[in-house]
Amino acid sequence: MKAGEDKLVERILEGLTRKGGPYLALGAGDDAALFTPRPGYETILTCDWFLEGSHFLPRKHPADSIGWKCLARAVSDIAAMGGQPRCFLLSLALPGKLALREKGRGRHWLDEFLGGLRRAARQLGCVLAGGDTTQRREILINVTVVGEVLAGRAIRRSGAKAGDRIFVSGVLGEAELGLQKLRRSARISPKNDRAMRKHLYPKPRLALGQWLADRKLASSMIDLSDGLSSDLPRLCAASDVGARIEAAEIPSPKLPQTGSKRFDALGLALNGGDDYELLFTVNANKARRIPRSFQGIALTEIGEITRERRVVIVQHDGTTKPLLPRGWDPFRK
Amino acid sequence: MKAGEDKLVERILEGLTRKGGPYLALGAGDDAALFTPRPGYETILTCDWFLEGSHFLPRKHPADSIGWKCLARAVSDIAAMGGQPRCFLLSLALPGKLALREKGRGRHWLDEFLGGLRRAARQLGCVLAGGDTTQRREILINVTVVGEVLAGRAIRRSGAKAGDRIFVSGVLGEAELGLQKLRRSARISPKNDRAMRKHLYPKPRLALGQWLADRKLASSMIDLSDGLSSDLPRLCAASDVGARIEAAEIPSPKLPQTGSKRFDALGLALNGGDDYELLFTVNANKARRIPRSFQGIALTEIGEITRERRVVIVQHDGTTKPLLPRGWDPFRK
Repeated sequence: MKAGEDKLVERILEGLTRKGGPYLALGAGDDAALFTPRPGYETILTCDWFLEGSHFLPRKHPADSIGWKCLARAVSDIAAMGGQPRCFLLSLALPGKLALREKGRGRHWLDEFLGGLRRAARQLGCVLAGGDTTQRREILINVTVVGEVLAGRAIRRSGAKAGDRIFVSGVLGEAELGLQKLRRSARISPKNDRAMRKHLYPKPRLALGQWLADRKLASSMIDLSDGLSSDLPRLCAASDVGARIEAAEIPSPKLPQTGSKRFDALGLALNGGDDYELLFTVNANKARRIPRSFQGIALTEIGEITRERRVVIVQHDGTTKPLLPRGWDPFRK
Repeated sequence: MKAGEDKLVERILEGLTRKGGPYLALGAGDDAALFTPRPGYETILTCDWFLEGSHFLPRKHPADSIGWKCLARAVSDIAAMGGQPRCFLLSLALPGKLALREKGRGRHWLDEFLGGLRRAARQLGCVLAGGDTTQRREILINVTVVGEVLAGRAIRRSGAKAGDRIFVSGVLGEAELGLQKLRRSARISPKNDRAMRKHLYPKPRLALGQWLADRKLASSMIDLSDGLSSDLPRLCAASDVGARIEAAEIPSPKLPQTGSKRFDALGLALNGGDDYELLFTVNANKARRIPRSFQGIALTEIGEITRERRVVIVQHDGTTKPLLPRGWDPFRK
């Protein structure tokens, strides 16, 4: 006679690998997991909320995407340190009908969710080590990811120096554009829409982060989760510097109509969240070692770090104005 | 101009130590934390939900207790492995009025909450390493604790063997009794009530767990978070064994009236959750090395592990019946 919680845990473990190879001496199923750190490496720790209503809409977001994204976005913080993910803890609170239904829609939702999570775990090289489950009216998810980086090689937010060049990976604002499309229409399939795919199935830039850390190329780094206009000031504050970026250089999404829509594209790129691209700074002498693309992802120089602690943007007309933090803020009124 | 979330993070960091001594190369404030594992040790990973309505009632539970308990209960899983806590990640979702109010009741709630958390962090030897914050109608908390144990010394759920003696620490059911008192009356002060103190400010049995691990005395161990009748079967299932416990031996709370209330006391001890005492098994040859109390906490032999996979209880009248899992189960209908 199993308790409800034990049944749910069994369903979760069925779908996800329990053995962690050399890294997990003990995986999910005990009071806690045992992780065996590699000698000479530091352990990276990060966690992320992923909550119904706040971060996803169960009527709009496929369960498969919720499973993928809850892990991918937490892993993005490991990428931002230049590290490699090893294992994760899953805290899951579900309505009883999704957690325990043996067949029908509830069963279907959990299977799809675990399918997306399993795919993310495999592709990101991250093994389920444990977690906690409970019942709740709404779907609540919290994911902790444990990663590793060679001791002393982690790239922090705080290393930027005046004169450093500022780079971003990929195209900014695509995920926000994808969200807007998703809200407007349930008919567009993400298979045919790049922006929607990026919103639903973000890919943390792990290889790029590790490449920058291995070669000691970046002086500081942060992942763009809330939007450039919010995350760049955070990097600057941590480094006690300012920044000047060029509107004309910021890689923004291609919109169907151009002309009057040009400023929308810039707005998306500055303030759109959920891109999980990397923003990093490089000493001017090393900047030429940054290629124009890395494994098919564009790397774009968008400005430079300044001594004054202000963060400004040079607009298309050549005038300069302060860059106001207008990215995602859960506490905005 | 700081975003709301950045302000809340500042309030949290003000109250909690950021430096982790030798263990934290980088604490809260970056994309992720950097933890430096000790050579020869394994890293213990665990996380726990602590949710308004499910795990605490903001009108009944002082904010100070919520802060203490969210960390203490997660640390209890480290105690159950025989390990030592090192650092923790705090995921906190709060209503805007509690997170950002500069004065008055909201300010007061967050200060009290952080006060309880700070005290727990200090007393349990556990440093804030990072986390995630967001806004939410209800208070949602998830805590991840990272601990360490000498490689190979962790005490798992799965090591119990037939013939091993079963021990518990402390008195079982006190926390549940404390919860019942709390629900009934707001007038009793926990200062004067042992059961209420145990419910509001549980103390994970860290020293006991480490002592058992250091001396290799316990063959298996679990912490009693959901109740003996739910947690003992879990330990037995993991060890592929059964158990027979004696009702007369189970340390249960002293109730004001005895007589007809005797069975209530046993019910509390079997099915009450939130005690965070340790349940452990000891090879019969080593059982005499377990003292009757450890640092003032009673250690009581309550039965033995059996080959048959059933879990049974010998009642006061000498008859034996199956022990049904009637502890805390969030999915119970």
